[in-house]
Amino acid sequence: MAFNYPNGRKFVPQPMKERKDPLKKFSYSNRGKTLEDDLNETNQYYLAHGIAVIHKKPTPVQIVDVHYPKRSAAVIKEAYFKQASTTDYNGVYKGKYIDFEAKETKNSSSFPLKNFHEHQVEHMKQIVQHDGIAFVIIRFSATDSIYLMSSEQLVLYWNRMKDGGRKSITLEEVKASSKKITLGFQPRIDYIKVVDLLIAENF
Amino acid sequence: MAFNYPNGRKFVPQPMKERKDPLKKFSYSNRGKTLEDDLNETNQYYLAHGIAVIHKKPTPVQIVDVHYPKRSAAVIKEAYFKQASTTDYNGVYKGKYIDFEAKETKNSSSFPLKNFHEHQVEHMKQIVQHDGIAFVIIRFSATDSIYLMSSEQLVLYWNRMKDGGRKSITLEEVKASSKKITLGFQPRIDYIKVVDLLIAENF
Repeated sequence: MAFNYPNGRKFVPQPMKERKDPLKKFSYSNRGKTLEDDLNETNQYYLAHGIAVIHKKPTPVQIVDVHYPKRSAAVIKEAYFKQASTTDYNGVYKGKYIDFEAKETKNSSSFPLKNFHEHQVEHMKQIVQHDGIAFVIIRFSATDSIYLMSSEQLVLYWNRMKDGGRKSITLEEVKASSKKITLGFQPRIDYIKVVDLLIAENF
Repeated sequence: MAFNYPNGRKFVPQPMKERKDPLKKFSYSNRGKTLEDDLNETNQYYLAHGIAVIHKKPTPVQIVDVHYPKRSAAVIKEAYFKQASTTDYNGVYKGKYIDFEAKETKNSSSFPLKNFHEHQVEHMKQIVQHDGIAFVIIRFSATDSIYLMSSEQLVLYWNRMKDGGRKSITLEEVKASSKKITLGFQPRIDYIKVVDLLIAENF
């Protein structure tokens, strides 16, 4: 069983070397919110406005020890972060199955592929095989630029890495092979507009 | 924030009064496995055979305190079970979004509606509004009988309860308004066959 180290207040599993201070809140020009916060707000907006039903999955945790105090809630006293076997977000939009992972980097010139795991890429391939829509949302936090890349496109870069090629996607490649998402007020990250383009292209 | 009490080795949140011994394993005629075990095996079978990609979501946990020992995995030292805001299982089958909740009862003559939560029923309604397929799988553990009931049908019984009617679905009603799933060896609970019938009826 592989365990990950969490990063930041939301405890999203990340490699240890990227963790500086586990309890330090992230700070972006973007109102101090993380990509996850913005996506959760966006998904709430979609839900409230009858646009789509998309939720973030809970962080997977391996529970080892639980105490049951009398007359109060059960307390988990020992547990560990587990590596997710799927992506973080999924749901339904216009009857279609939607599945995506969201990651950000402080790197400004390329997006490191280590942000994804082999089984997540495999999961996205399976989704596409079953006619679902799978993609990644990536944010360059230095410039607050957000892109949506189809899983098919991600797999090309992933395979290049596995064939011994570079371990990241350059910013130029991201720009050429993704769709940029313009930041808005409500919803904050209106990715469904880009999903509409994907549907128009593929179906 | 509402917290639930866990039930059995898998720590699936359940009302306290149903919990007898939290660490006691369930024992069924069915090889000592729970409904969740059987469904996970079934989903693995579907995945391995290219039939569907359906996963159980992780149990939602509110993390309060995490320790970071040197050179070993982060340990969660305090956390609480959260009530799920959606159903437990979702995924894709033939391009369609699939969403369901699975519950079992020791009761032999009726299925108590307290096994579901208001927000889960609301979630299933939203799924149907977006042309997804939502249902519940219910098991009467005394007889090991398993039924699949569409969320539309469940909502009828739910509304009857809210209108002051009975707080459970009688076994006769379950039989009349659900499809029985015959237990098999592999896959154990072949619910996708029933989903095919739902799709044929509704689309």
